[in-house]
Amino acid sequence: MATSTPPQTAGNGAPLTKAAKGLEGVIALESSICHIDGAAGELIYRGYEIDDLARNATFEEVAYLLWHGVLPDREQLDALNRQLREERPVHPDLIDHLRHHTPKDVSPMTALRTAVSMLAHYDAEAEDMSREANLRKAVRLTAKLPTLVAAFDRIRKGAEPVAPRQEGSTAFDFLYMLNGEAPGRAAEKIMDAALVLHAEHGLNASTFAARVIGATLSDIYSAITGAMGALKGPLHGGANVEVMETLLELDRSGESAESFVRRKLANKEKIMGIGHRVYKTLDPRATILRDLLEGLSEEKGERKWLEMSDTIRKAVKEEKGLEANVDFYSASVYYLLGIEVDLYTPIFAISRMTGWTAHLLEQWADNRLIRPNAAYTGPRGLKVTPIEER
Amino acid sequence: MATSTPPQTAGNGAPLTKAAKGLEGVIALESSICHIDGAAGELIYRGYEIDDLARNATFEEVAYLLWHGVLPDREQLDALNRQLREERPVHPDLIDHLRHHTPKDVSPMTALRTAVSMLAHYDAEAEDMSREANLRKAVRLTAKLPTLVAAFDRIRKGAEPVAPRQEGSTAFDFLYMLNGEAPGRAAEKIMDAALVLHAEHGLNASTFAARVIGATLSDIYSAITGAMGALKGPLHGGANVEVMETLLELDRSGESAESFVRRKLANKEKIMGIGHRVYKTLDPRATILRDLLEGLSEEKGERKWLEMSDTIRKAVKEEKGLEANVDFYSASVYYLLGIEVDLYTPIFAISRMTGWTAHLLEQWADNRLIRPNAAYTGPRGLKVTPIEER
Repeated sequence: MATSTPPQTAGNGAPLTKAAKGLEGVIALESSICHIDGAAGELIYRGYEIDDLARNATFEEVAYLLWHGVLPDREQLDALNRQLREERPVHPDLIDHLRHHTPKDVSPMTALRTAVSMLAHYDAEAEDMSREANLRKAVRLTAKLPTLVAAFDRIRKGAEPVAPRQEGSTAFDFLYMLNGEAPGRAAEKIMDAALVLHAEHGLNASTFAARVIGATLSDIYSAITGAMGALKGPLHGGANVEVMETLLELDRSGESAESFVRRKLANKEKIMGIGHRVYKTLDPRATILRDLLEGLSEEKGERKWLEMSDTIRKAVKEEKGLEANVDFYSASVYYLLGIEVDLYTPIFAISRMTGWTAHLLEQWADNRLIRPNAAYTGPRGLKVTPIEER
Repeated sequence: MATSTPPQTAGNGAPLTKAAKGLEGVIALESSICHIDGAAGELIYRGYEIDDLARNATFEEVAYLLWHGVLPDREQLDALNRQLREERPVHPDLIDHLRHHTPKDVSPMTALRTAVSMLAHYDAEAEDMSREANLRKAVRLTAKLPTLVAAFDRIRKGAEPVAPRQEGSTAFDFLYMLNGEAPGRAAEKIMDAALVLHAEHGLNASTFAARVIGATLSDIYSAITGAMGALKGPLHGGANVEVMETLLELDRSGESAESFVRRKLANKEKIMGIGHRVYKTLDPRATILRDLLEGLSEEKGERKWLEMSDTIRKAVKEEKGLEANVDFYSASVYYLLGIEVDLYTPIFAISRMTGWTAHLLEQWADNRLIRPNAAYTGPRGLKVTPIEER
């Protein structure tokens, strides 16, 4: 068996270039959607700082911005809100599917991955690859996912799904469908801001997966179903679930947050929600969410989670120099909103749907198959021998 | 609005390196599964040349090779065949889903993307990320996809699905479930060889999508559902469908193959199944499939598709210097086997399932999140203005 590896070349004869593991630091493509400066702690959607957007724009304005590159005027925003409300109901077969073909113990992101794939079964435009049709499907997916998430949650609890009111914002109707009653103004506002904060984040793993799938000229449902699967991963969208589980466990144990952090770090365990592949300084979204959590904690008269989070964050910063990321505070925000812990990732998906679909529209506007190479490290020159001789 | 772009850096402060579009020529990772030398027209799985494997090993031996890195001995192969046969039946809810929640006009890869995602609903090990559980799930997915494909096809035609015989090879049981009768020896052998030929092909778009999704530590069903979505794309797994549609159209039109090629090339249209991103010389799989097609054409007494294919291939080579790829001959092979044209991509998926899952096992053995960067080309320094002023 020969094991030496002769130099490889790309198909065109050019030498291959070896990238860092995980493609870290490799510019895979150009994009005008999002700029992240990890060193400066800066996040920009289409030219606007995330802080400005979170404080001064709604999720629907941000969705429009991501898809079209500019903020909508009143007429454009009204039209988008109308479309989103019209598109919120899902085909009754989807509800039937969640009721009868989705066992109650299936993980939410698994159930929703299937349901999102199934949306294509009832979309006559599913295979239409025109930009106009893909824009309509982006709106449709953004409108319908909150309905699916809420229906899934109610059905698994033995409650009847609540049909969308088809009024108000995405945040309003989602909380309405989830709880069966209209949310208060503060809850709606915080949910809306959380949706803005998670809407887009460059070539994260789920967005990159969506673009790799979309670049084969497969349809938007294929790409989004793949993105749902990627977001499900604990190294990606699953992080805020683990943050909350950690906080709940710490609360039950009675251990102090400082001692918890020291013990974890001494055991070389990772503390979820701290540190980020991209941000080496503070994740700007963490600051905004912390402010929102402060207000929500006052309103709810429950400062425990805020204080516990702040203590952990401070201790980790002192010990390791690492900063909190967006997942760290979103966990407590959703918990105070009374949302089941395992729905945090689906809510992330509701928000990121806008970023995913914006990236797909951009990919298709100037498409090229995304197909890197692997360096072969295996054996060579083997011959198949008869099975009796193996 | 400032539009200048300051130099970007990776999170660790190192400068970003810009890759060619589509990551062409970039080594994204190391792998011991497959070696492709596009210039030499060489394809190796785990050290064995594809020609040797296609002629001297079964699909099940190749599956074992891809997963374990070595060819099985008799006992190992018997054990794998036993597992595959046991795992072929699908949960009755899946059949119910194909019957009642999969409209007949849904594209096969859409229907099967949903069905593969749904397999997780009925797998108690779905979330178990141990290597042993993932190996069992790899076998399970490889065993169940043929059953789903056959059931989908029969149900849409108004026929009753045929349960697997749970005997013989994957190729045998698949053709049995598809047609409701046991295939002849020649048909089984050709199907088996076609499955060997499509089992693995390095970091193609669907495999890369699977690894990007899997690298978040999401589960195998998420990664495979994403891969199904990528394979659906016309630039990837959809190609042999288009080859056959072209051959059928040409046959109906009565135009000569030579004139067809000249006309297409003059109009700068792409001829499907010719040329390949990786192979700049002959795709070695095309030669093997052509030989198989020759034998099958003799047996069926129908040489039309072989001759038409050969003429097109010769003419394109003369005019453009481009060679046929694997899709070019697989189209006619499946057509002569009496398989519906739109099932060619699902059959590709049945085969590639083994490569996808082998890559996922390799990814998880030494995992790192796959997260490249995008170069930001959009505006900067914008401020949100009140909507009335836009």
